[in-house]
Amino acid sequence: MSAFTERILRASRSSRSLVCVGLDPDPAVMPVEDVFQFNREIVSATADVACAYKPNLAFYEALGHDGLKALDRTIAHIRDAAEHAVIIGDAKRGDIGPSARAYSKAMFEVWGFDAITVNAWGGADSVVPFIENPDHGVFVWCRGSNPGSGDFQDLETIGGSALPLYQRMAIACSEWNIQGNVGLVVGATVPEQLAAVRELCPEMPLLIPGVGAQGGDLEGAVRAGVDSAGRLALVNSSRGIIYASREADFATAAGRAAQQLRDAINARLEEDGLGWPSS
Amino acid sequence: MSAFTERILRASRSSRSLVCVGLDPDPAVMPVEDVFQFNREIVSATADVACAYKPNLAFYEALGHDGLKALDRTIAHIRDAAEHAVIIGDAKRGDIGPSARAYSKAMFEVWGFDAITVNAWGGADSVVPFIENPDHGVFVWCRGSNPGSGDFQDLETIGGSALPLYQRMAIACSEWNIQGNVGLVVGATVPEQLAAVRELCPEMPLLIPGVGAQGGDLEGAVRAGVDSAGRLALVNSSRGIIYASREADFATAAGRAAQQLRDAINARLEEDGLGWPSS
Repeated sequence: MSAFTERILRASRSSRSLVCVGLDPDPAVMPVEDVFQFNREIVSATADVACAYKPNLAFYEALGHDGLKALDRTIAHIRDAAEHAVIIGDAKRGDIGPSARAYSKAMFEVWGFDAITVNAWGGADSVVPFIENPDHGVFVWCRGSNPGSGDFQDLETIGGSALPLYQRMAIACSEWNIQGNVGLVVGATVPEQLAAVRELCPEMPLLIPGVGAQGGDLEGAVRAGVDSAGRLALVNSSRGIIYASREADFATAAGRAAQQLRDAINARLEEDGLGWPSS
Repeated sequence: MSAFTERILRASRSSRSLVCVGLDPDPAVMPVEDVFQFNREIVSATADVACAYKPNLAFYEALGHDGLKALDRTIAHIRDAAEHAVIIGDAKRGDIGPSARAYSKAMFEVWGFDAITVNAWGGADSVVPFIENPDHGVFVWCRGSNPGSGDFQDLETIGGSALPLYQRMAIACSEWNIQGNVGLVVGATVPEQLAAVRELCPEMPLLIPGVGAQGGDLEGAVRAGVDSAGRLALVNSSRGIIYASREADFATAAGRAAQQLRDAINARLEEDGLGWPSS
């Protein structure tokens, strides 16, 4: 087992959870003004029931230098308050050669993420620079949770056998995954595609957005997304947790929403005999 | 003609140039330590012969907050020293829904780019949020200059007629281009694909990386990339210009390299009767 998958399994075991909390702070919706204060309270309230946090860089970049400073402080607070948690930079970066190496430096050395999301439109050249160090994990965007993801990702491709493009992406990623530090992003809204990817990549971690606000079917996503041991799936909810309440009780509400999501996932695992060992 | 294509044509006319200077500051190679000083001297030395500048965000992000502050100052200096020039944020951002809207805010409102590069793996949902405002231009990454770009972009796809994926991308982009603010990125290293895209999208601006350090064939790229009037192609060189000398004369050398590139492109245009009108 690779250092990266072991890191994910350890995070899940300590929290008995497959929940990833998406930290997408939006001043138009946040009940407090300060991004760091918002994140800090959300993280503290969910630390026991989350195995991962996923700040989406778009929301921090939209706030300029101040937003990026709040991201710095958020990462430090997660390390402090949820030591076990994997921190995934949802950056969807994708470029080639020296540019990809510069992004890799930014994401893993400057920000210090454990893993990031990557866009592999540029092929091997756009993924390899991120995975040369086995301690750095990536989740390659394979099949999105949005309707438009089908525009290209579902196109049937010729070459050997006819396969939809997202399956070729999954196969390519499993070929690049020599050091065991590559995972895939597949939406909860497309359980059939999720099941197909899990079958092609039985041992790779999957990051699964689209439950909660995006309306993905949780039960189907859990069953299709976990590995044979009921692990290595990170089920992400962003708005469903962080905006569970838009009032002063937002942190308590976020904690409750994350716990409900964890419990619902764990109930499915238990039904299939894949629950957490008694502690 | 759209505001965006008119903006590009105006920039080309004032500089009699199709040259885009890529600003990829790399401390391991730069002859001076300070990123802003480096960029400022490069921009001042090339202002007369460049129609566009393309800072690649990867290189600034790799330097953390200080790098991003240098980017701020660089953009301000370009506005000042090369008023005519189009500033393209080479960000290759791609995400969906609220995340794409947040990136759009970051790129056009926080940074203030005239245009950015976009990765459209997520389909229409990953492009539309960037082009709702007709003053904002995008160049969608269609066919890269790197060998790995072929991994997915050249795959034959079924559906109607069999077409390589990059051509489907070009067709989709021309369908999304209702407001005339969508362009495409196609590498100079693949002149056949460049010609195919130009044929599919006769009136869209093309951003063409890969001449210079990446070894693309300039003559072939110019002939294949320009529109029927010999315009709307931005031929980018980064390392070939900014690292033309790695000594104290780097700015002078950059100015000379940019001028040589402009002259070589203009010679091709003149041969085809598409030169600049005498001023």
